[in-house]
Amino acid sequence: MESKTPRDRSINPKLKNLRRNITFDVDQLYTGILNGDIVHLSKAITLIESTNPKHKKSARLLIDKCLPHAGDSIRIGITGTPGVGKSTFIESYGSFLIEQGTKIAVLTIDPSSQISKGSILGDKTRMDKLSIAEMAFIRPSPAGDSLGGVARKTRETIILCEAAGFKRILIETVGVGQSETAVHSMVDIFLLLLLPGGGDELQGIKRGIMEMADIVLVNKADDDRIKLAKQTKRDYKNAMHLLPPKENNWIVKVLTSSGLHGAGINELEAEVQDFHAHTKANDSFAKNRAQQSSYWLEESINQQLLETFTAKEGMEELLNKLRADVTENKISPFHAAEKLIQKFLN
Amino acid sequence: MESKTPRDRSINPKLKNLRRNITFDVDQLYTGILNGDIVHLSKAITLIESTNPKHKKSARLLIDKCLPHAGDSIRIGITGTPGVGKSTFIESYGSFLIEQGTKIAVLTIDPSSQISKGSILGDKTRMDKLSIAEMAFIRPSPAGDSLGGVARKTRETIILCEAAGFKRILIETVGVGQSETAVHSMVDIFLLLLLPGGGDELQGIKRGIMEMADIVLVNKADDDRIKLAKQTKRDYKNAMHLLPPKENNWIVKVLTSSGLHGAGINELEAEVQDFHAHTKANDSFAKNRAQQSSYWLEESINQQLLETFTAKEGMEELLNKLRADVTENKISPFHAAEKLIQKFLN
Repeated sequence: MESKTPRDRSINPKLKNLRRNITFDVDQLYTGILNGDIVHLSKAITLIESTNPKHKKSARLLIDKCLPHAGDSIRIGITGTPGVGKSTFIESYGSFLIEQGTKIAVLTIDPSSQISKGSILGDKTRMDKLSIAEMAFIRPSPAGDSLGGVARKTRETIILCEAAGFKRILIETVGVGQSETAVHSMVDIFLLLLLPGGGDELQGIKRGIMEMADIVLVNKADDDRIKLAKQTKRDYKNAMHLLPPKENNWIVKVLTSSGLHGAGINELEAEVQDFHAHTKANDSFAKNRAQQSSYWLEESINQQLLETFTAKEGMEELLNKLRADVTENKISPFHAAEKLIQKFLN
Repeated sequence: MESKTPRDRSINPKLKNLRRNITFDVDQLYTGILNGDIVHLSKAITLIESTNPKHKKSARLLIDKCLPHAGDSIRIGITGTPGVGKSTFIESYGSFLIEQGTKIAVLTIDPSSQISKGSILGDKTRMDKLSIAEMAFIRPSPAGDSLGGVARKTRETIILCEAAGFKRILIETVGVGQSETAVHSMVDIFLLLLLPGGGDELQGIKRGIMEMADIVLVNKADDDRIKLAKQTKRDYKNAMHLLPPKENNWIVKVLTSSGLHGAGINELEAEVQDFHAHTKANDSFAKNRAQQSSYWLEESINQQLLETFTAKEGMEELLNKLRADVTENKISPFHAAEKLIQKFLN
């Protein structure tokens, strides 16, 4: 699969092999991370992204050591229709947070990216100011051939970043595959960016995303689009009111912003803090995180069971045959599943 | 778990044992179903609902025999906020379809119902006209302790009803657990009933449902509520326009109806037929059904794998321990999953 973004993420194969054979000192990395050392943090993320089986044990150990020091942050998911200006927005919002004295980490989930480990290319080029700011840490999407793998590495990267003292984690989804659902399942607050206009502008957004949003931001409210943006804001405000209420009783707000001119960032940050205060007060903040942990536990069990299942000899052939039979109504899906499980257990 | 509906579904334990020991003649049932015989259809559904292991093989055989004769229907899912009048609506709409010469089956998915097998109580009492109509077949929700089990039985019941010549299958969801998602995954068209008013009226609807709807029906547009219903219709029309477009390019319509007076049923049926023509023309009808079959195949595999997994000795204890550890951030969800899988494979 090709990367959907124009950046070049190819890497010298020799360099890749070299990286595979790196050895990692878990205690050193751990101490470095707790001291907020970026070099150690980067190296630790490379460790958890490694596909070398020898590295897996060290990675697990490091994560479990960092876990008690993690959690003290606001994790913000950011999604939006293509061309809405996510990178420019993150550059504006991130710079604002840094000026306020907040250390930020910017991560991405892109299940279509194949090679990107620690590349100095990637998202950094789209974020001039943040990429040179000391208080910002930018890491492109980990590589992986499954969303599950990419999501796992991103979730573990959050832990490491929090242990290193980053207080805001911004996680961008590129909207490929089920990446929004994955990001939604690892953040405290979910931000949807829209273009002024609405309706036809939604072609790139998958259904179901609208109802995940905690804050809707009509971006590119620049110059001659301000009037249209305000109308769009009103329309969505009315529409959001007609969606079922959130479990945490949060009322979704619709705001406008201009990534270009930096307008609206103040209001957005006030809203994020409102959300944080609201969910802390009614305990839905902690509840949501606990539910997310349970979700990832169950997801991981399911995924690993399925991997064990499909790894069995002859299983994929039988699965493909039965899937075709099911589609042609020769056998019911339930009966087909029973046959497959029977083969698995024998 | 208690049934959320007020009807009494208790059954004489002796009768239950009697039923367990019934023997079924698959060929006789098959012939009876193809002849549209209601008694054989009912008995066949009792067979697939049976928890007796001896009956499972016969059930599978019967389903696979009926499969090639099934499929020629429109499967309609019906959900809605509590008190919206789903039963009265189904009574009106069903009666209308019967007058048009269409045989209809009315099924329910209620994961909270424990005992209901073939009970002549249940939904029938709420649908006076339909319950005595020869062209209607009403079957309450199958019992089951998991949504997966209830959903499977309902999906197999659809096959049997279609093979028996029922051309419209109406499947009501009671909105408990994930029942809407289950129903949505087995129907061609999904109907959401709302009350006039909107906003506050949505308390009983789970988020995500709105984006599943193919037709929104503002029900109880009776007498002095007609004006409010029309306003609600306009509001939702605007709101639906702001949701991302459907993959099949269907544009969701908002209609009004009065289950009490039968108003709006004509327009609804015209819309259902429009949807059917639209999805048949662009092949999304068949594509959706094929996707649903694949979905249930994968769901069944996952579910049976998980059952095998949790059945292993000591597994539930370890799962509970690790789930607590995960929630308390003592171990990452992925590491915990690995430990569990390791135990499973040993």
